Amino acid sequence: MNKFLVFQSDFGLVDGAVSAMEGVAYGIDADLKISHVTHDITPYNIFEGSYRLFQTLEYWPKGTVFVSVVDPGVGSDRKSVVVKTKHDRYIVTPNNGTLTHINRFVGIDEIREIEESVNRRKDTELSYTFHGRDVYAYTGAKLAAGKISYQEVGPQMSLEEIVELELFSNVRTDDSVTGQIDILDVRFGSLWTSISFEEFAELGFKFNDMVEVQIFNNTTMVYSNRVIYGKSFADVSVGMPIVYMNSVYHMALAINQGSFAKAYAIKVGKPWTVVFKRVDGR
Amino acid sequence: MNKFLVFQSDFGLVDGAVSAMEGVAYGIDADLKISHVTHDITPYNIFEGSYRLFQTLEYWPKGTVFVSVVDPGVGSDRKSVVVKTKHDRYIVTPNNGTLTHINRFVGIDEIREIEESVNRRKDTELSYTFHGRDVYAYTGAKLAAGKISYQEVGPQMSLEEIVELELFSNVRTDDSVTGQIDILDVRFGSLWTSISFEEFAELGFKFNDMVEVQIFNNTTMVYSNRVIYGKSFADVSVGMPIVYMNSVYHMALAINQGSFAKAYAIKVGKPWTVVFKRVDGR
Amino acid sequence: MNKFLVFQSDFGLVDGAVSAMEGVAYGIDADLKISHVTHDITPYNIFEGSYRLFQTLEYWPKGTVFVSVVDPGVGSDRKSVVVKTKHDRYIVTPNNGTLTHINRFVGIDEIREIEESVNRRKDTELSYTFHGRDVYAYTGAKLAAGKISYQEVGPQMSLEEIVELELFSNVRTDDSVTGQIDILDVRFGSLWTSISFEEFAELGFKFNDMVEVQIFNNTTMVYSNRVIYGKSFADVSVGMPIVYMNSVYHMALAINQGSFAKAYAIKVGKPWTVVFKRVDGR
Repeated sequence: MNKFLVFQSDFGLVDGAVSAMEGVAYGIDADLKISHVTHDITPYNIFEGSYRLFQTLEYWPKGTVFVSVVDPGVGSDRKSVVVKTKHDRYIVTPNNGTLTHINRFVGIDEIREIEESVNRRKDTELSYTFHGRDVYAYTGAKLAAGKISYQEVGPQMSLEEIVELELFSNVRTDDSVTGQIDILDVRFGSLWTSISFEEFAELGFKFNDMVEVQIFNNTTMVYSNRVIYGKSFADVSVGMPIVYMNSVYHMALAINQGSFAKAYAIKVGKPWTVVFKRVDGR
Repeated sequence: MNKFLVFQSDFGLVDGAVSAMEGVAYGIDADLKISHVTHDITPYNIFEGSYRLFQTLEYWPKGTVFVSVVDPGVGSDRKSVVVKTKHDRYIVTPNNGTLTHINRFVGIDEIREIEESVNRRKDTELSYTFHGRDVYAYTGAKLAAGKISYQEVGPQMSLEEIVELELFSNVRTDDSVTGQIDILDVRFGSLWTSISFEEFAELGFKFNDMVEVQIFNNTTMVYSNRVIYGKSFADVSVGMPIVYMNSVYHMALAINQGSFAKAYAIKVGKPWTVVFKRVDGR
Repeated sequence: MNKFLVFQSDFGLVDGAVSAMEGVAYGIDADLKISHVTHDITPYNIFEGSYRLFQTLEYWPKGTVFVSVVDPGVGSDRKSVVVKTKHDRYIVTPNNGTLTHINRFVGIDEIREIEESVNRRKDTELSYTFHGRDVYAYTGAKLAAGKISYQEVGPQMSLEEIVELELFSNVRTDDSVTGQIDILDVRFGSLWTSISFEEFAELGFKFNDMVEVQIFNNTTMVYSNRVIYGKSFADVSVGMPIVYMNSVYHMALAINQGSFAKAYAIKVGKPWTVVFKRVDGR
């Protein structure tokens, strides 16, 4: 293992929870290299946790161990697992949907359940609410440090047991594709859609083409406009909208130096869909 | 020393203050391992600073040096000190109450005043407002790096000189215990009380018992209900309240996947008290 | 090189962008020591990015590589550069004004344009919106790791090509100095001005002198009062204003344990000016 241990959670950084996890990990091996995706996942939002892993995991060196704790079911019978991804990263997490995007878009080779009788901090059996510290950080650190092998995490499970959130199924027609607004590029208010670059390109779009864009909140249309398809924000004037491919190779909508989400009060998730249509189509 | 240096402050992370402290520390020893509890302590809130140290310190390896800067009295005659805790961690801090919880619940073996004539960055005598950088980070880094011994911090003080905030004195009766709402688990809106698990358990409560819970803002009752005592949030339905033992082994109140603090506009500190009472009591 | 790599951006820490940059950097050299100034620069605010570098850079060891990405012009023809500062730190950044304060107040010895044909992640030519990951983090990591020399960054440019924001020109009279409110000490609401300690001291002020302070929003006066010049906040009672020298040796205005900015709804930048005047002057 390469000693990289990367944390993610919905704990925030305003209290000591994340630092307690770091302390536990360093107590196992002082040479670990600890880093963080984010701890500002919206509380209980498993979809976001899943997406942020998808956005970052493959940029890290092989052998990196991720610990992701978005765990609304702490104390329920949801299982604690460690998976090995197709290109050799590891994720320690409750098996509650957090693995959805990685399973779908990267691939998971193996899943094991954490055997808590060995892979849990001693004398924490009475603590029921902070598995992030007592189980996940502890097991992740032992794995990243090479103190246990992946096999020693616990018994193997079937790949079918990976819990998945339902993802939106994009709809293609001859001249359009409909997807969901998955998530925001929060700071800049850009809309990241479930539509991949390939699905978009198959419609024949080229840079500087106009795209017919419609956004719906359930069945209510909240935006309808022709928007240019550009490489990057600087292709349009400040304040103008643009369709572009984002950093995870999906299609996105932004306003140059503005916020598309704020401008039209657009949110994310199930009820929010977007249609990209050829202008010449009918 | 183990080279671990852990910072905490009320500086926030939106400007360069924390990075300047890190730069100063690495300038003393490039092999330091710098980490952070939080820099989002509410400005000037010494109680919070004290509590966050209590929440994290003992999870870190022995020999770790903490630097805590919540310092409303910077430039006053409050002393700058370094303490050695009962189990061999160090805290560099203004002696202004930040040591309250560690002194009370962990124990402090020794306290020394920082001798600024030697343990202060050169040529910073004209800078009066950033002791975090010029005195605390500098001294903490020298100590963590082993460039000075603990004795070389400066002259020993009496343990009686440790400045303590007044803590709420919990009140026990035959069938109840009254405590203060000390602090929030901010992200999730859970109320963390001053009542320890032992004090609660002495009333004879067992899992799944109902607890009579009353919350007061001064003398005004703001919440009164029977709440189940459970292991973890998943013991109750989404949206239901629960009494549970938190990660620092104190009693707490939460709403499963909701925010207790927001639901009833409850805040923390002196005027906010909570009573746990046996339901069969009278 | 000393392997220190320090990131700054306006990306925020709520998604995975910063972690993706870290992963890319560690992929180049697992022994890099990565740290962060802040990622909460106000979106698109180049002035703030420039100022935060000024506030921190010189506290870091020589040889440290900074990567600053506030890049409203990503995808435009703004150049990607690496500069070597007077005292041997490096900054990787779009040449869009981010270098203003360092150029003016620290000094830049050399500037080179990043040769993207070699110093860009392979197979990212189709990604146009995340140069922070694909160009800046990548090049910064190679430089900090010693995998490329400074000369191998790319061709040298003329120092005259450094893009600078216009800075306010302070105005001195016999008994006053007028400056701009540059930026806030955000957490504490203190106003940091463009007036250096030297400019202020030349007026003859000594500690405990009263200063005639006027603040203007364009031509509208929004504050006029006599304020004591003190060493530190503790020199005045809680709630009282104070003129003092801040941690970057410029003059500042604060309210002890309050927020000057909130109290008088004061903001920063061009329209916001401040006058310090001798009380005996006329």
